[in-house]
Amino acid sequence: MDFDISTYLRERKAWVDDALAGIFEGLSRPRPLFDAMSYSLTAGGKRIRPALMMAAYEIFREDGRDIIGFACAMEMVHTYSLIHDDLPAMDDDDLRRGKPTCHKVFGDAMAILAGDGLLTEAFSLITNTDKTGNWPAEVRLGVVHELATAAGAAGMVGGQAMDILSEHREVDLDTVRFIHTHKTAALIRASVRIGAMLTGADSEDLSRLSRYGEAIGIAFQIVDDILDVEGSTDTLGKAAGADGKLEKATYPAVAGLTRAKEKAQAYITSARETLQPFGSRAESLQQIADLILKRNN
Amino acid sequence: MDFDISTYLRERKAWVDDALAGIFEGLSRPRPLFDAMSYSLTAGGKRIRPALMMAAYEIFREDGRDIIGFACAMEMVHTYSLIHDDLPAMDDDDLRRGKPTCHKVFGDAMAILAGDGLLTEAFSLITNTDKTGNWPAEVRLGVVHELATAAGAAGMVGGQAMDILSEHREVDLDTVRFIHTHKTAALIRASVRIGAMLTGADSEDLSRLSRYGEAIGIAFQIVDDILDVEGSTDTLGKAAGADGKLEKATYPAVAGLTRAKEKAQAYITSARETLQPFGSRAESLQQIADLILKRNN
Repeated sequence: MDFDISTYLRERKAWVDDALAGIFEGLSRPRPLFDAMSYSLTAGGKRIRPALMMAAYEIFREDGRDIIGFACAMEMVHTYSLIHDDLPAMDDDDLRRGKPTCHKVFGDAMAILAGDGLLTEAFSLITNTDKTGNWPAEVRLGVVHELATAAGAAGMVGGQAMDILSEHREVDLDTVRFIHTHKTAALIRASVRIGAMLTGADSEDLSRLSRYGEAIGIAFQIVDDILDVEGSTDTLGKAAGADGKLEKATYPAVAGLTRAKEKAQAYITSARETLQPFGSRAESLQQIADLILKRNN
Repeated sequence: MDFDISTYLRERKAWVDDALAGIFEGLSRPRPLFDAMSYSLTAGGKRIRPALMMAAYEIFREDGRDIIGFACAMEMVHTYSLIHDDLPAMDDDDLRRGKPTCHKVFGDAMAILAGDGLLTEAFSLITNTDKTGNWPAEVRLGVVHELATAAGAAGMVGGQAMDILSEHREVDLDTVRFIHTHKTAALIRASVRIGAMLTGADSEDLSRLSRYGEAIGIAFQIVDDILDVEGSTDTLGKAAGADGKLEKATYPAVAGLTRAKEKAQAYITSARETLQPFGSRAESLQQIADLILKRNN
């Protein structure tokens, strides 16, 4: 088989980078706001959520580029969450993707507003027919609802709040699990679901992909927690050991490194099994699951 | 004529307050996040944007309560903007609507997340058929797009950024106008437009209501600027003189108090004229315009 996941991801990252480069075309005032938004948006992310969205779409359709607008919107929401998480009032991080964080370059006020702007423009984008193509209104509405629910207080924002509230505290595994499913898995799960929703996938397939997305999302965060302990700032592109300093509620902190690694592996195995009914059409999703386990940044 | 605008507004404020009180039903974890969101949402706003939305709807339909879900979503977006604006990194205000600001009670991190949560949940709400009633998907999509565009970087967030960037600087009237149209008028205009859009109003009526909304929105902010100079902290429920301290770009600062008052009056006159074709059906919008000019908080 000549399928190569690195090439697959590199190609999709290039599509997303290209599309994001022109995403604020026609908007420029005030300059520092759009500079701050573009700075973080083009700071070199792996574009894993857009890739997952397109890979899920490609189980049922030919070309992931059909949904590039939705993929960009997802990356905008992800980037907003990074900008706000890095703020001094939150995790107070100076480095992200190997570059100074948004607030270090543009100041706290502009970073807060850049995050607000990216989040809101994502909803503007996915409801813009000119920029995202011609989709049935019902489907598009479902996508807005999926994204808002996954990103909001019932999802990512709730997880981030729990994460902050758990710093310097004794927490149990249930709290860690809440943080992982909400802070990280919610948006990853939504990425996969939205890709499938745009093809009109039936509820059985959607439910399969939900379980896959949730499992790789949790594994993604467990690996993140492990890398914070074992990785170096150089490889990570962000400060290693940051969780320990804030006494964050992480899987390794609560259950130990060995158990954390076993658990990440188990989630990936279960995610892969969930995809079986799709056969080779889900090859890219299968291999992305593996990469999440093996990544070192 | 027995129409009384105070009764009209009091009634609608009660509808909105009631609906907002139960808006996070079923959501409670983590508690401090939802407490922070509810705290600011129920801190006693005038609910002028929801009232405007319902008043515009009632030009064409009987009962504004039909669109209470959308009115609540608008108030959630407005409340998010107040929470973020009040942050130490932004305007650093301790008092809002006569109560300590969100970050004074819940801390900066929870206030940032409460704002993020309110904004995102607003989009979740207006795409939730169970909670907002049965509207054509195309219409509902148009509402999402209207709200996102008005609230985002091309609208309110852009205006707030320009406001922050203009502190302690010599600015011209064009900059003040940019701030007023974006920071304040964009959301007020969208409130009126959404009310009409939900009735399927034609483009001529929509354009009329856009002009009305923009004019009263700008007047609203000019009056706000004037009250910051002439009002007392007691009456305002927020710190008087705050703009002067930050050397904000305001209409009185750039053109003087007299000219500011004339300008606010002129915008209100123009807004009222725009409504003429609607006759008595727009009586509530007419009187809201007057109130905006005469308000003292």
